[in-house]
Amino acid sequence: MLSRTPEPPYYAVIFSSIRTEGDHGYAAMAEAMNRLAAEQPGYLGMESAREAIGITVSYWADLESIRRWKAAAEHMVAQRLGQERWYAAYHVRVAKVERDYRGGMAGDRCGGSVIDANWKPG
Amino acid sequence: MLSRTPEPPYYAVIFSSIRTEGDHGYAAMAEAMNRLAAEQPGYLGMESAREAIGITVSYWADLESIRRWKAAAEHMVAQRLGQERWYAAYHVRVAKVERDYRGGMAGDRCGGSVIDANWKPG
Repeated sequence: MLSRTPEPPYYAVIFSSIRTEGDHGYAAMAEAMNRLAAEQPGYLGMESAREAIGITVSYWADLESIRRWKAAAEHMVAQRLGQERWYAAYHVRVAKVERDYRGGMAGDRCGGSVIDANWKPG
Repeated sequence: MLSRTPEPPYYAVIFSSIRTEGDHGYAAMAEAMNRLAAEQPGYLGMESAREAIGITVSYWADLESIRRWKAAAEHMVAQRLGQERWYAAYHVRVAKVERDYRGGMAGDRCGGSVIDANWKPG
């Protein structure tokens, strides 16, 4: 599902990564992290895909929401194995979405099966 | 490979999509589109993954580079079948990257296999 975000401006956190071999508790952490994100104030949605690299983009109302989410996420990671075990490399970018447009056969429908504002991965 | 982008600020174009069934010339178009992007002035890199949804993030020096790339891409699409055939839904977001950080076991290495050799300094 694609995230149904509001009109810009809002913020995107682009998390690009290359995984290490093996799980090391990764799957459980990822699911917990997605749940944690969705509970945060200012959370607008999340989109995720992985092939050779993984890309997860989460959308947020403002920078303050991202700061709170980052603190909560770091606390959760600190209680577990630590991201150095899960990622050979990662890159986080915080970006302000200034404009957007959408399309496709189902792109202009509100509701419907393709678009889901409340989608949670996993 | 993760893109080796310069210090912010720079721009990201986040393209999220759900494919239609069948190829309809998609694979050839995608390859041509990636080549076209890499030839554009202001191109800084591209990251892509697809599972249930596809996410392609391209990085650009400034908005003018994105405008030129958009015009070139639309020209290429207009010569082919058109994106309505390839995508059940898509969403394009243009975002200004304000800050970034990286990490992981190989995150601080210059060169090496994890970091994209195509990096150009800002």
